[in-house]
Amino acid sequence: MQRKVWAEENCPMARAVDLIGEWGSILILREAFAGVRRFDDFQHNLQMSRNLLTTRLKKLVEGGVLVRQPIAENAKRLEYVLTPMGLDLVTTLVALRQWGDRWLFADCQQPARLIDLQDGSAIPPVQIRAASGRVVSPAEIGMEEIKKAGN
Amino acid sequence: MQRKVWAEENCPMARAVDLIGEWGSILILREAFAGVRRFDDFQHNLQMSRNLLTTRLKKLVEGGVLVRQPIAENAKRLEYVLTPMGLDLVTTLVALRQWGDRWLFADCQQPARLIDLQDGSAIPPVQIRAASGRVVSPAEIGMEEIKKAGN
Repeated sequence: MQRKVWAEENCPMARAVDLIGEWGSILILREAFAGVRRFDDFQHNLQMSRNLLTTRLKKLVEGGVLVRQPIAENAKRLEYVLTPMGLDLVTTLVALRQWGDRWLFADCQQPARLIDLQDGSAIPPVQIRAASGRVVSPAEIGMEEIKKAGN
Repeated sequence: MQRKVWAEENCPMARAVDLIGEWGSILILREAFAGVRRFDDFQHNLQMSRNLLTTRLKKLVEGGVLVRQPIAENAKRLEYVLTPMGLDLVTTLVALRQWGDRWLFADCQQPARLIDLQDGSAIPPVQIRAASGRVVSPAEIGMEEIKKAGN
């Protein structure tokens, strides 16, 4: 494992955490995936201070995860909508939620589950697979430095 | 979407964020997955203050994600090792890293990639799949409340 590729500014995970890892940001995204778009609804559901919510939403908009747009053509009121970049976080959020289901609800029944709306079946645990389809275990995952020149 | 199932204490994602979502925790886990076990190595790699690192490690140990154990039988020095619960975070961390690769390195070449150590091939993007194997899009994912009594 080369240490230098883990350097803060060059690590995709560090950059991702910088953008969405602050307290509250993941829960804002959870709400957005659940269909929430308006400031007041985020505020009501999360019981977050308006100042903090404003700060978090601003960062998510500036980072390209949410976009602020009029609620209808020519409307003045604005709402917050997930961009393609934001929607692409679904895998991370579902994996995180499923992990919470497995490990943080051992003492009690979990309150809800994720389902496939096409047929109502439960969404199975997200898995890391190799190109062949084989499920890859943590010990089988490595890092390879990408060379700058040539290929 | 039932609002009440998203309530803080009953939401697996909120509980997960409480445990691993603080500044620095994800990067500690990244280091642990890269094989780091000793306090001084975490400290050196992350350039985190010793006080903050101590606080973060303590919470991860208390939460069951890391375990503190002697570096060898009868040794006094301790190291931090991922538990099965911690290892199970691999899916979330890989999904987060891959998202960072896709969206936060558009302006430059990413420094490294995740590979399958069995054959050196790149790990493809983690995907959410239905029980049938179909890739599920964000719009197809719903929540179903789990009933307490009966089934």
